[in-house]
Amino acid sequence: MTDIKRRKFLKTAGTGGLAVAAAGIAAPAIAQSAPEIKWRLASSFPKSLDTLWGGAETFSKAVAEMTDNKFQIQNFAAGELVPALQVADAVTNNTVEVGHTAAYYYWGKDPTFSFGASVPFGLNFRMQSAWMYQLGGIELMNEFYKKFKIYALPGGNTGTQMGGWFRKEINTVDDLKGVKMRISGFAGAVIAKLGVVPQQIAGGDIYPSLEKGTIDAAEWVGPYDDEKLGFAKVAKFYYYPGWWEGQTQLSLYFNLDKFEALPKSYQAVVKAAAHTANEWVMSKYDVLNPQALRKLVAGGTQLRGFSEAIMDASYAAALEVYTEISAKNADFKKVYESMKAARGEGYLWQQVAEASYDRYMMGLQSKGKI
Amino acid sequence: MTDIKRRKFLKTAGTGGLAVAAAGIAAPAIAQSAPEIKWRLASSFPKSLDTLWGGAETFSKAVAEMTDNKFQIQNFAAGELVPALQVADAVTNNTVEVGHTAAYYYWGKDPTFSFGASVPFGLNFRMQSAWMYQLGGIELMNEFYKKFKIYALPGGNTGTQMGGWFRKEINTVDDLKGVKMRISGFAGAVIAKLGVVPQQIAGGDIYPSLEKGTIDAAEWVGPYDDEKLGFAKVAKFYYYPGWWEGQTQLSLYFNLDKFEALPKSYQAVVKAAAHTANEWVMSKYDVLNPQALRKLVAGGTQLRGFSEAIMDASYAAALEVYTEISAKNADFKKVYESMKAARGEGYLWQQVAEASYDRYMMGLQSKGKI
Repeated sequence: MTDIKRRKFLKTAGTGGLAVAAAGIAAPAIAQSAPEIKWRLASSFPKSLDTLWGGAETFSKAVAEMTDNKFQIQNFAAGELVPALQVADAVTNNTVEVGHTAAYYYWGKDPTFSFGASVPFGLNFRMQSAWMYQLGGIELMNEFYKKFKIYALPGGNTGTQMGGWFRKEINTVDDLKGVKMRISGFAGAVIAKLGVVPQQIAGGDIYPSLEKGTIDAAEWVGPYDDEKLGFAKVAKFYYYPGWWEGQTQLSLYFNLDKFEALPKSYQAVVKAAAHTANEWVMSKYDVLNPQALRKLVAGGTQLRGFSEAIMDASYAAALEVYTEISAKNADFKKVYESMKAARGEGYLWQQVAEASYDRYMMGLQSKGKI
Repeated sequence: MTDIKRRKFLKTAGTGGLAVAAAGIAAPAIAQSAPEIKWRLASSFPKSLDTLWGGAETFSKAVAEMTDNKFQIQNFAAGELVPALQVADAVTNNTVEVGHTAAYYYWGKDPTFSFGASVPFGLNFRMQSAWMYQLGGIELMNEFYKKFKIYALPGGNTGTQMGGWFRKEINTVDDLKGVKMRISGFAGAVIAKLGVVPQQIAGGDIYPSLEKGTIDAAEWVGPYDDEKLGFAKVAKFYYYPGWWEGQTQLSLYFNLDKFEALPKSYQAVVKAAAHTANEWVMSKYDVLNPQALRKLVAGGTQLRGFSEAIMDASYAAALEVYTEISAKNADFKKVYESMKAARGEGYLWQQVAEASYDRYMMGLQSKGKI
């Protein structure tokens, strides 16, 4: 009830004041503020990818624990209720109240979605947090998401991803020409400018495609997930970094009407549970990736860094795509400008104390001194 | 009630079963699980240092919002209830139920406290999160804290700190000899081995000490807080990195008995609110530090990196102190071994995708290309 309506109501109901007051007492405040709610969450990830799937589990568990199980969210893995890449639609249509997904899967609807996950030569994890939580990133994305009846919060992060698996070495920009690579959306549009033939293939179908030689290369996430999917058995060279994913944020998507109808206390619970999931996924990857990397290298995987020339050509190609899309999409342009400002400031600061400390520690690490 | 006691109770109370059940119904479950609670929090920080103080504010606000103001925590700044460096004692003694502080302030009680904040050549922010949330860091520290009747959770982070302000240039290890520097605890013990004379001085007293020349150098946090405290006016050279603070975690300290007596749902609320505060403080620093750095440099501050030789000598000195303390303190040794394992794995992984991406992006940043 708006304040104006409430005052009107109190005025017109003046003669029946006692009855109104009595009705107020009859419904205890506690029941209104902590109702029993059961929601369903559709994840874009299978249970086997336990870091990604685990983000949704961590979120729903925190919500249940904080509300004494009064607010329960049941999680469904990719394909159980809706296909992996249709989670946004399911939230928009209120087929499910919540989705746990990567926003760039919906690049085809509007490229602006990508900023909710990752964009080429974008932010790293720390900068994404700064942008989202302090520089209006959450608000800016939600302004855009209104068109899709979605309210979104960060709900996990992978950190910088790897550049993917190649069956042959990529030493020069020319070596990329004609390479059929599983790489999607924005990154696919950029790398196509260097002659790569991008392919959209779901996670579970990458391994057979690489094995059969339908594709020559594939990127997925990082050592932990990639080792699980077995890519090392069919491609020898593992490149870094994934310049299209300096960080990749997972998103919790809520049906906007459903989120707005929640009691304020439940909205606060959801926000804090999203923070919990965000730190859980990032820290889980940071523990599991080094173990998997060690295993991959022991098994014969060859680690390779993209050359400076490849990075430069990719950056130039990315700028072209940013310019092309910005020219015809005002939402995209607006969010891009905001992200760019966060990135410039972020790298200005992180190159000082943070990078010099890490550089020294990495030196000790590679000399076996820590 | 333990399960054995409960079964015994049910058995002996068998004949009066109906009365027991009736009593159970009479007290509605809702009242038990969401009681009205008012707690007090003592911060080690003044309100003027709004990122540090803001961590406690973010925490208490999240707790209140999630519980419809039924669980209220009133925050008191440093000195309002207890002095800045006596927050741990106040929590142990239940003078306040909660403290928001930096664990290394209590290095004098036991050096093991330091791992809850920062140790020389320790973890960076990402690794601290991985260690705390996924590798048993929280549990290990709380095992130690039991002696002090404290239960602790991460409640903010500064990231890598700066190496501090010097009135003269420090080009060689010899230049450090005889320098009177405001630097405390563990870091002070290490840097003393290089000839620095460490001084324990509270935040508010650093500026006059530097101005009067009672000290020649001082470290505090980073650009944002340091600029506020005015150090640039009395010392020209600003060094990086603070090798004694690769990250510095703020801690929420709870009186152990009080925490354990909370309903499970409130314990969950407290944990999620701590995650919220942790991300808030880190992201706030990441937004404010670059602005302050820009201002400092425009005002004439000279940025200087510690030389490799100074870093090496400091690392050697740190190893000596780690060895000395480990030989006589089993708690310290146990936590140190756990931290070291997390650090080795962390840097193994972060030097691959993460560092190569950041290095390339920092290159673009310094060429003015992003």
